Amino acid sequence: MDLKRMGNQTVVFANPPVILSSYSVVGPKEGQGPLGKTFSKIWKDQLHGEKSWEVAESKMLLEALKGAIDQVTVPLEQIDFMLAGDLLNQMISSNFAARQMALPLIGIYGACSTMALGMALGSMLLDGGFARHVLVGVSSHHDTAERQFRSPSEQGTQRAMSAQWTVTGAGSVLLGRSGTGPRITSATIGRVIDYAEKNVNNMGSAMAPAVADTVINHFHDLQRKSADYDLIASGDLGAVGLALATEVLKRSGVDMGTKFTDCGIKIFDASQDVHAGGSGCGCSAVVFAGDIMQRLKTGELKRVLLVGSGALHSPTSALQGESIPGIGHGVVIES
Amino acid sequence: MDLKRMGNQTVVFANPPVILSSYSVVGPKEGQGPLGKTFSKIWKDQLHGEKSWEVAESKMLLEALKGAIDQVTVPLEQIDFMLAGDLLNQMISSNFAARQMALPLIGIYGACSTMALGMALGSMLLDGGFARHVLVGVSSHHDTAERQFRSPSEQGTQRAMSAQWTVTGAGSVLLGRSGTGPRITSATIGRVIDYAEKNVNNMGSAMAPAVADTVINHFHDLQRKSADYDLIASGDLGAVGLALATEVLKRSGVDMGTKFTDCGIKIFDASQDVHAGGSGCGCSAVVFAGDIMQRLKTGELKRVLLVGSGALHSPTSALQGESIPGIGHGVVIES
Repeated sequence: MDLKRMGNQTVVFANPPVILSSYSVVGPKEGQGPLGKTFSKIWKDQLHGEKSWEVAESKMLLEALKGAIDQVTVPLEQIDFMLAGDLLNQMISSNFAARQMALPLIGIYGACSTMALGMALGSMLLDGGFARHVLVGVSSHHDTAERQFRSPSEQGTQRAMSAQWTVTGAGSVLLGRSGTGPRITSATIGRVIDYAEKNVNNMGSAMAPAVADTVINHFHDLQRKSADYDLIASGDLGAVGLALATEVLKRSGVDMGTKFTDCGIKIFDASQDVHAGGSGCGCSAVVFAGDIMQRLKTGELKRVLLVGSGALHSPTSALQGESIPGIGHGVVIES
Repeated sequence: MDLKRMGNQTVVFANPPVILSSYSVVGPKEGQGPLGKTFSKIWKDQLHGEKSWEVAESKMLLEALKGAIDQVTVPLEQIDFMLAGDLLNQMISSNFAARQMALPLIGIYGACSTMALGMALGSMLLDGGFARHVLVGVSSHHDTAERQFRSPSEQGTQRAMSAQWTVTGAGSVLLGRSGTGPRITSATIGRVIDYAEKNVNNMGSAMAPAVADTVINHFHDLQRKSADYDLIASGDLGAVGLALATEVLKRSGVDMGTKFTDCGIKIFDASQDVHAGGSGCGCSAVVFAGDIMQRLKTGELKRVLLVGSGALHSPTSALQGESIPGIGHGVVIES
């Protein structure tokens, strides 16, 4: 078989996989944000009747996964793989959701870039002929993330202005080999880039160079520029990281024009007190599954580059004085 | 493109990827075990001159990754993806090793099944035409795992007889589309199975039903039986889990014959005080990269089924009273 590669890091799909459906479930704060109307389901509170935030997060992911399936007539036994990941230690949200799905599970981890990684990898499994349908889903939850990565929510610790607010949300897409819907036409898997940022309250800055690296390689591999896209969305750099990524790209000779935005900026507005913006696996997942998918379907957006961005540290590595490695995974979606 | 699927869960490779090289690095206890002579490198102590066990584990993985590359003449720029995972929160061993490799990274998580998952996924990326070479590596470290999952090693907590000893080890394989070496001919991605085992000191029992499920599906999909293999190795059920998996399979009408063994049993001997055997991502990885690969290369083994087994809980889920979901990922390697 011929290689489906362009340049160094980008794969181009011979038969671009179709996004047959998408689904998003969010918490109340996200529901009150500017994209509130684009989400499939908004929970009234963070627990949703469960006994812990962790159980609630896994339940939210399960709702998102089932939501994507329920919109189509694809039988469960024709979904050959489920790709899932989340921020919790040992990815318990995904693993416990998968326990109830009974689908072959490929666990993936790219921190907040996991949705883009899943869409890229799922597309390779479909275009490579290994699956009929692939279900991709990720989640994050503000309160599970706070107590695991920072301080318990109940403590009410003051947050730095460069900090981002972990989105309570789960997003999913069901991918197929044929059918109606936007198509995933190429993907650029990122390298780990570390510019020695050590401030865990400024993850946008830690991830910005990795996003810039992936964008540069993507443009180089496909011989494209920002004007070739209707939207280039990182997820999730926040305000500090987006400005830095734009600057890094500019200094590398890449003009991002006016179409470069960030899912973490889009999901909340200034009145919501989230400082630099949203973050978490769920952030780019629900912005994509909701707002971006809807605009692709109406034809308002014809070609989108989603660059999921992940900060690949842990509380242990930070306490041991390590800097924060970043990664960016890109996928191109066309209507 | 035609589907490369057989039955429900198994993919069969049209052009079976080749294992061009493998490399294993282990700690001193593993080096003193019965497979000591099969490992590429044995560290003299658990820290290897690093300031923390976590840094040492990441360094060990890096040594394994570089070791696989150094044995062949494949230039780094022709390795299109690195697939890696480990047991530490947010997979810092893999992410920090990837920072130094500068290869596009696909982070994967399947607990102790991660090596088999990586070999399966890497083979799909190669056979699908998305890569020229794929590097797969995983690691675990006894002391990083103890302090993260159980009690710090310094505490000297008494261990249950059903408990397994996390292997300090990192294993890697370099996969290619052509060349000389054993080939990966098929793969069976597992489903999450949970028989409600809650004892975190008996992970073998928690994983046994998932291994049995994958073996049953694999045999069903390919219309094979245990006699069709020279070796069927789970990794890592330990003595308690292997006995249970054998029993579950027997009751399901599957006779495993005499060729069913477990990497966690093979790596240590009774005098080493490891109770039920070895575990950890590194266990099946180094047993495969060392002993099994050598026996495949000499032709002593012609067809091997490696079933990586993972316990998909976390300390948080266990403390919240959840049971332990298990998973088994199978790959067939033929000389």
